[in-house]
Amino acid sequence: MKYLLKIAYIGTGYCGFQAQNNGRSIQRVLTEAAEKIFAVPTRVTGCSRTDSGVHALEYYITLEPGEGASGVKTENIPRAMCSVLPEDIGVVEARAVDDDFHPRYSAKGKEYKYLIYTSPARDPFYSGRAWMHYMRVGTSELENMKRAAGYFVGEHDFTSFMSAGSSITDAVREVFSFDASLSGNLLELKVSANGFLYNMVRIMAGTLTAVGEGRLSPEDIPGIIGARDRSRAGVTAPPEGLYLNRVFY
Amino acid sequence: MKYLLKIAYIGTGYCGFQAQNNGRSIQRVLTEAAEKIFAVPTRVTGCSRTDSGVHALEYYITLEPGEGASGVKTENIPRAMCSVLPEDIGVVEARAVDDDFHPRYSAKGKEYKYLIYTSPARDPFYSGRAWMHYMRVGTSELENMKRAAGYFVGEHDFTSFMSAGSSITDAVREVFSFDASLSGNLLELKVSANGFLYNMVRIMAGTLTAVGEGRLSPEDIPGIIGARDRSRAGVTAPPEGLYLNRVFY
Repeated sequence: MKYLLKIAYIGTGYCGFQAQNNGRSIQRVLTEAAEKIFAVPTRVTGCSRTDSGVHALEYYITLEPGEGASGVKTENIPRAMCSVLPEDIGVVEARAVDDDFHPRYSAKGKEYKYLIYTSPARDPFYSGRAWMHYMRVGTSELENMKRAAGYFVGEHDFTSFMSAGSSITDAVREVFSFDASLSGNLLELKVSANGFLYNMVRIMAGTLTAVGEGRLSPEDIPGIIGARDRSRAGVTAPPEGLYLNRVFY
Repeated sequence: MKYLLKIAYIGTGYCGFQAQNNGRSIQRVLTEAAEKIFAVPTRVTGCSRTDSGVHALEYYITLEPGEGASGVKTENIPRAMCSVLPEDIGVVEARAVDDDFHPRYSAKGKEYKYLIYTSPARDPFYSGRAWMHYMRVGTSELENMKRAAGYFVGEHDFTSFMSAGSSITDAVREVFSFDASLSGNLLELKVSANGFLYNMVRIMAGTLTAVGEGRLSPEDIPGIIGARDRSRAGVTAPPEGLYLNRVFY
């Protein structure tokens, strides 16, 4: 059997999704939980390699328990998993899927949110859950950021928005939508695409911040994309503001 | 000088606002921070004795530094305090007030929120920040809870909604407003009054939950209030769902 699980997690205490030699990964904690439930070795596959400290409001994994797995009913998997998982990971729903379903390769696209807390005063409820970055965002700053975001939409080579260490050779991705909105002191960037390069959303967030602060103009964006040069884009915004928000299948 | 500070905090790691012999209190941590800033003994007075684990979206304290205090400008106090406070306490603003201002006795009323996460699936983002209590809330359940909440409005003796250990003798309070709303799986109760008895909001939340689950009818509420008997009301809902939301001066 292969199960598809919709989960959510706070990434603060983890080294990212993927199991690594050192550090506590989401994948490792999920694998340990699944093996308690099924009482056999179980393969856990994720929909995305999220970085250390990045959160997920919606994330998908598949579970493939080995031979002789205990007979947990599909509808009972979320509650069984929640009972053995730490409080910062939740399982929302589970269903059986075909063997050829892959949470990553079957995805047609994803949507990320990036949250920036723009006030100089600290809001403890956003600590570790948004980038604490003081900036003045009025109507014109927000309009500039929205216009800049619009230039990312479409199919482009996003080499300028990929961390230098990446081994990806084809950096062409299609951004479906990209918007910025402000609610009180909280600036929310929301971007969907058919795929994302390593640190792409965080670099786009750092670049839009530069637009909001007047260090770049919205009309600089096409040139930055066209340059295919990481050094032309803005800083890589920190992980705590980033949320995987939706996965499209 | 006497300063009035608007603060916010996540109560999870604290034994409540008030300094106690054992346990780490919000008041103690604020006092230590203020004494670092002013470099002299400083009196910290709060607007409410919130319980262990209770949060505050808006809370007021006064700071009274002793003789010889360092000359921190009022407008710099929030940032100075934030720089020495832990991440779960934030200072939003500060202003000078008259000597006779008291954050508790000068308050004309307060508003609390109580959050109930009603889905059986865990949302890690509400862990420790809402009461995880599975209940089905449809239109009729919500209507019943709103009707029940309405019976609390007005001036009543709330002895039935005060924890047994309290030494208060006059339990008459005026509830200004009380409403229930649902957003996704999150049920929000919001109540304002000229004052609250010990555990009053948590007992009202436990009682409204009983109405939502059909164990009490909205029309039972006047009789429960009239009985002046704690045993007639519902359970005391846990602290993690409770937020001090506003203080009226």
